[in-house]
Amino acid sequence: MATSSAEINIRPATPDDCPEIMRLIMELAIFEKLPEQVKMTVDVLRKDCFGEKPLCYCIVAEPVQTESPDLIGYALYFSTYSTWEGAALHLEDLYVTPAFRGKGIGKRLWKHVTKDGLERGCNRLQLSVLGWNTHAKDLYLRNGCIDLTETEDWHLMRMKRNTMEAFVKDLL
Amino acid sequence: MATSSAEINIRPATPDDCPEIMRLIMELAIFEKLPEQVKMTVDVLRKDCFGEKPLCYCIVAEPVQTESPDLIGYALYFSTYSTWEGAALHLEDLYVTPAFRGKGIGKRLWKHVTKDGLERGCNRLQLSVLGWNTHAKDLYLRNGCIDLTETEDWHLMRMKRNTMEAFVKDLL
Repeated sequence: MATSSAEINIRPATPDDCPEIMRLIMELAIFEKLPEQVKMTVDVLRKDCFGEKPLCYCIVAEPVQTESPDLIGYALYFSTYSTWEGAALHLEDLYVTPAFRGKGIGKRLWKHVTKDGLERGCNRLQLSVLGWNTHAKDLYLRNGCIDLTETEDWHLMRMKRNTMEAFVKDLL
Repeated sequence: MATSSAEINIRPATPDDCPEIMRLIMELAIFEKLPEQVKMTVDVLRKDCFGEKPLCYCIVAEPVQTESPDLIGYALYFSTYSTWEGAALHLEDLYVTPAFRGKGIGKRLWKHVTKDGLERGCNRLQLSVLGWNTHAKDLYLRNGCIDLTETEDWHLMRMKRNTMEAFVKDLL
């Protein structure tokens, strides 16, 4: 591909982008070696991103000079909260398809997310990265992220829906 | 203290609770050995929790038979999103003041948060815990949480506001 970074457009996602975003979500999950964890569908994504109460924000990257509707990257993020610093932003997914890597598109997407966060009054931006994904980890560290798992020993914990249901049985 | 768990009431927080919640936020930050990271004030907390666009939800624990307005614990949480599983919940703070520990109050607060998450259609509940805080970590693991930092090598990354501002300078 001879496409330079300047020929890539970054714009807010629209409901019509959802099938393409869903394709990229699957690409990312396969790259992260956890594709079996994906339960998302295009319809659920469309409702969650563009319904009455949007649960997240999404921007996409596409080549400017092409008739193809193919998206080549996306960033999906949402507002969170810190009792120590107030409004915050969480970058859930940042992905560029392999043929377009090394052109700074991921960094451009990330910058647009960060700018949006600042405009929303956010005092921090957080994300989770797989430790073995050194390319992504280095990008984050090189641009000023702190690895809190390394520096402060924070661990990420998850309870899944079936466990949540079992946990509150005596409250229902 | 002879107060049993049955004499503790769990209820949604109100704007009037904010000074007490702020006191407990400081207690928790000191316990976590990171008090210098707390930039929160009672006024900001009140606006963020109970303003036009609430950024988070909060429930509190208090003794039933007392005239004292002292809260003894709180849980603060918010909605998030997973591109793999959809709507999710993040438990930001779960805290019980030392004199009332060992009575299951933390677990009751956590159950109420989990129940609220299920009612909001959440498919997972996540939280971050300090690795050295074995008491909290064991509570979470014992009740069905998975330590994703251990099992999948997820690291938590953070960019602070001054770094965010520097990062997007060429976009402004």
